[in-house]
Amino acid sequence: MSPSVLRGAGVSPGVGVGPVRAVAGAVPEPEPDSRHAGDAAAETERALGALAAVAADLESRGVRAAEAGNKEGQDVLNAQALMARDPGLADGVKAKVGEGVAAARAVFEAFGVYRELLAGAGEYLAARVTDLDDIRDRTVARLLDLPMPGVPESAEPFVLVARDLAPADTAVLDPRLVVAFVTEEGGPTSHTAIIARTMGVPAVVALPGATGLADGSRVLVDGAAGTVQVDPSEPEVAAALAAAEARAAALGESTGPGATKDGHRVPLLANIGGPQDVEAALANGAEGVGLYRTEFLFLDRSAPPTDAEQEEAYRKVLDAFPDGRVVVRTLDAGADKPLAFLPPPGDEPNPALGERGLRMMQHHPDVLAAQLGALARAAAGRSAKLQVMAPMVTDAAEAAYFAKACRDARIEHPGIMIEVPAAALRARDLAAEVEFFSLGTNDLTQYACAADRQIGGLAHLQDPWQPAVLDLIAITAEAAAEAGKGCGVCGEAGGDPALACVLTGLGVTSLSMGAPSLPFVRAALARHTLAECREAAVAARNARTADAAREAARANLPALTALGL
Amino acid sequence: MSPSVLRGAGVSPGVGVGPVRAVAGAVPEPEPDSRHAGDAAAETERALGALAAVAADLESRGVRAAEAGNKEGQDVLNAQALMARDPGLADGVKAKVGEGVAAARAVFEAFGVYRELLAGAGEYLAARVTDLDDIRDRTVARLLDLPMPGVPESAEPFVLVARDLAPADTAVLDPRLVVAFVTEEGGPTSHTAIIARTMGVPAVVALPGATGLADGSRVLVDGAAGTVQVDPSEPEVAAALAAAEARAAALGESTGPGATKDGHRVPLLANIGGPQDVEAALANGAEGVGLYRTEFLFLDRSAPPTDAEQEEAYRKVLDAFPDGRVVVRTLDAGADKPLAFLPPPGDEPNPALGERGLRMMQHHPDVLAAQLGALARAAAGRSAKLQVMAPMVTDAAEAAYFAKACRDARIEHPGIMIEVPAAALRARDLAAEVEFFSLGTNDLTQYACAADRQIGGLAHLQDPWQPAVLDLIAITAEAAAEAGKGCGVCGEAGGDPALACVLTGLGVTSLSMGAPSLPFVRAALARHTLAECREAAVAARNARTADAAREAARANLPALTALGL
Repeated sequence: MSPSVLRGAGVSPGVGVGPVRAVAGAVPEPEPDSRHAGDAAAETERALGALAAVAADLESRGVRAAEAGNKEGQDVLNAQALMARDPGLADGVKAKVGEGVAAARAVFEAFGVYRELLAGAGEYLAARVTDLDDIRDRTVARLLDLPMPGVPESAEPFVLVARDLAPADTAVLDPRLVVAFVTEEGGPTSHTAIIARTMGVPAVVALPGATGLADGSRVLVDGAAGTVQVDPSEPEVAAALAAAEARAAALGESTGPGATKDGHRVPLLANIGGPQDVEAALANGAEGVGLYRTEFLFLDRSAPPTDAEQEEAYRKVLDAFPDGRVVVRTLDAGADKPLAFLPPPGDEPNPALGERGLRMMQHHPDVLAAQLGALARAAAGRSAKLQVMAPMVTDAAEAAYFAKACRDARIEHPGIMIEVPAAALRARDLAAEVEFFSLGTNDLTQYACAADRQIGGLAHLQDPWQPAVLDLIAITAEAAAEAGKGCGVCGEAGGDPALACVLTGLGVTSLSMGAPSLPFVRAALARHTLAECREAAVAARNARTADAAREAARANLPALTALGL
Repeated sequence: MSPSVLRGAGVSPGVGVGPVRAVAGAVPEPEPDSRHAGDAAAETERALGALAAVAADLESRGVRAAEAGNKEGQDVLNAQALMARDPGLADGVKAKVGEGVAAARAVFEAFGVYRELLAGAGEYLAARVTDLDDIRDRTVARLLDLPMPGVPESAEPFVLVARDLAPADTAVLDPRLVVAFVTEEGGPTSHTAIIARTMGVPAVVALPGATGLADGSRVLVDGAAGTVQVDPSEPEVAAALAAAEARAAALGESTGPGATKDGHRVPLLANIGGPQDVEAALANGAEGVGLYRTEFLFLDRSAPPTDAEQEEAYRKVLDAFPDGRVVVRTLDAGADKPLAFLPPPGDEPNPALGERGLRMMQHHPDVLAAQLGALARAAAGRSAKLQVMAPMVTDAAEAAYFAKACRDARIEHPGIMIEVPAAALRARDLAAEVEFFSLGTNDLTQYACAADRQIGGLAHLQDPWQPAVLDLIAITAEAAAEAGKGCGVCGEAGGDPALACVLTGLGVTSLSMGAPSLPFVRAALARHTLAECREAAVAARNARTADAAREAARANLPALTALGL
């Protein structure tokens, strides 16, 4: 029925072949009049046993998430487990079963009490009912022997297909078993896209009909072309793999530091979340670290890390790049990433527009000073160049505040993220206060287009190719150049080979990205001159839509197609 | 102890004198070991009676809110009432009282069960605990004879003092009894500021120590100077009132259409929410309507309004301005303003960055077409000039979509709100698609500075005087002028007399505001030349912070001080 080749948006290059494993659909409501055979005690035990098993499963998924470095995922799963173990819920189930109701139905109805309370409490709480429903559905699925909702278990490698993937879904994935991601929704900066690039797994998102793919059917996923072929023939698979191999070989020809064809240097750096990511960065030839997210040190603890803990985590990364730079972003906490010892300043209706990043640190200067002190001590006597930057800086006053805090801690190279449109527009004012900029293109795009990165339906507006975003990048790079200061990019945009060339043409001086993207960007830069990059940038800015900008730029970057990028 | 004159930010001009009535503070936790006298049945009756009374009070506040036109307020209050009437809660209270626990403590503990459930469910639900706590505190206050939290009841006129005011607080205020607002938090676009200007009541926000003002003490509030004087002498009160009167007289000298001293015309228009606001607009000399919010026709109903209902509502406003213009904004719905018949597209973590405005209407072209059709029919054969604009337009493709929808409905003057930074940056591209722009400075500031309008702690970043926001306004006005098209302002910025002059200097061609601000803006414009306005604009854009921009502009607008503005 469906055409054999489906077309979506390729967001992580590479070729993968395997059977489809779909994230299971909804669990049906148990029949309202379903009764048990008469032994209430046995049925109660069965129901409570299922709840306990679901709680235990959630907790063990939590442990696996934590082992995979996802402490946040563990928190979410543990909170759900706690709800499954709620004694009030168990009492409700017992009472229903006592009235003769079958276990699955009793569970369904007992959850209903809490559900109504939440649903009656206004539209925001009503929306959270989803979380309760997930636990209920897992319990009902277990009692009725239905497939468990969520990411499937599989012993053999598979292509994971879903409407969209949430952090909780991907927290427990085994990277050795997933050969490709395919989702019906999502965009280039969606969670699925980022996780796929981080894992180095091919991915196609925004593929209409993805969830209609039959479970178990064999598909060939091309993450560069954005295609999914159903039931490919052996010659087709062989041809795709050969092409991917040829491209890998072409990529392998470009090695060493990042530079254009005519030798204009553009240092290529890696985005990392901690020392555990250093190995992949080195393997992909990173010249240093362009974004060291330090949140992992602070999440899921009741007190800040000790000075010694911090120093050690920073020193490990600095030691890995004795001849390079390491750009550390100070703690980016806020209502969307709450810390137990830094409670968010209250209920925020739009956490992305709230007191996050430096805004929050200004209320906790001691935490900021401790981090800066640990960074300064970690860098002392080391050859790596330490650069430290603050997230969510909006105006010159905030830039000056952070620069002073750095200088007080004897950090010589204070910088700031440019991710708020006002900061980009006034980059000239801010350049006077700090030593370098780093453009956070994901948030910059989100704010410039007022389009939440988490909403698939707005993917066309979250595109860093939006000409308005290119304008903001150009304004920032020009202001930095005038002041003789550096201006890097550390958002996902830096890992898009075509956009990396455009950014270079706009005057960006370094590019930082997930390690697996480095070889692609290195190859793309090596095959184009700075003049070609500049022409591509002009063409993109002359366009009126994101798609037109992308096309116009690619028309000026002929070697991309030859590379299969 | 406190100095007799406190200084904050004046956000709504005028002078008010009266006794302080503070929004009551927290209700204390009932003692853990408090027991009742022994008659459990009587104590249970008392506890359940208090819960019922709280529910009834919430519902009657809801009815008053609805009568005051605030249907959303009613929804929130009704949802709370429903929670107070929850049978599971009543069972919990009964059980506790049965164990000998006193009514207030029993209520406190029974709420605790739900509270823990919510608090255990992750940080977003934990934040919602506040809603439950409000009902609990009202019930406990009633049982312990403590002052009720929330806005005080008063029979005589008073100065309302609070940390900050939420829509639910102000929904039930009687405008004849409130002589001034004073809040400790909030900024120029906070809810308190907007409601004060709409009511024409003086207001001072961001006043440190406001909540320390003794209840019942007499204060003199000057909403232009931003001062609050405690225990003023009679001569001081007389002087302040005389000054306010003199200013009112000076304001009264400027009448007729808006224009600078040298005759540069700047039509002065009113922001309205429906036909009920036309009278105040006419009384304040509005030359037309610059923003007709049409949401009131759609809120709180299970089906869209009929074509005839819509036509009538539009025609009433058009008929009130036979020689003027009426700028209608099409339905601005979304997750933050959900409609029963247009459910939001799912759970949005940041509704302000979600599928709102035209983004949502693109999923419901029939609703848009019906509204445009009703507008076209309402305007047919009438002399008023109808202009129709879409909210939340981001790029040229969306502008073209809306222009086509208007032309299909035979509406000749399609326009768009400029409230997304990307739209302002690319105003040149968008100007080719439509006939006019209207700058929504509140949202534009919120997105450009990535600072939620609802968060008091970010007031300094929500300031339309931020130089980056002035840059975006300038870019938009220049692009409109080049294309020979109009560019108005309909955000709160237009009602600030100094900023109104700067906007005129930046090239804005009309100003729309809450009706009570019209005389102030008219007087400010009439006393300055276009050249002075332009110099003030240049001075403001040369500044590096919002405060510096405001000061620099005022230094170029000498007549403002003489007017007491």
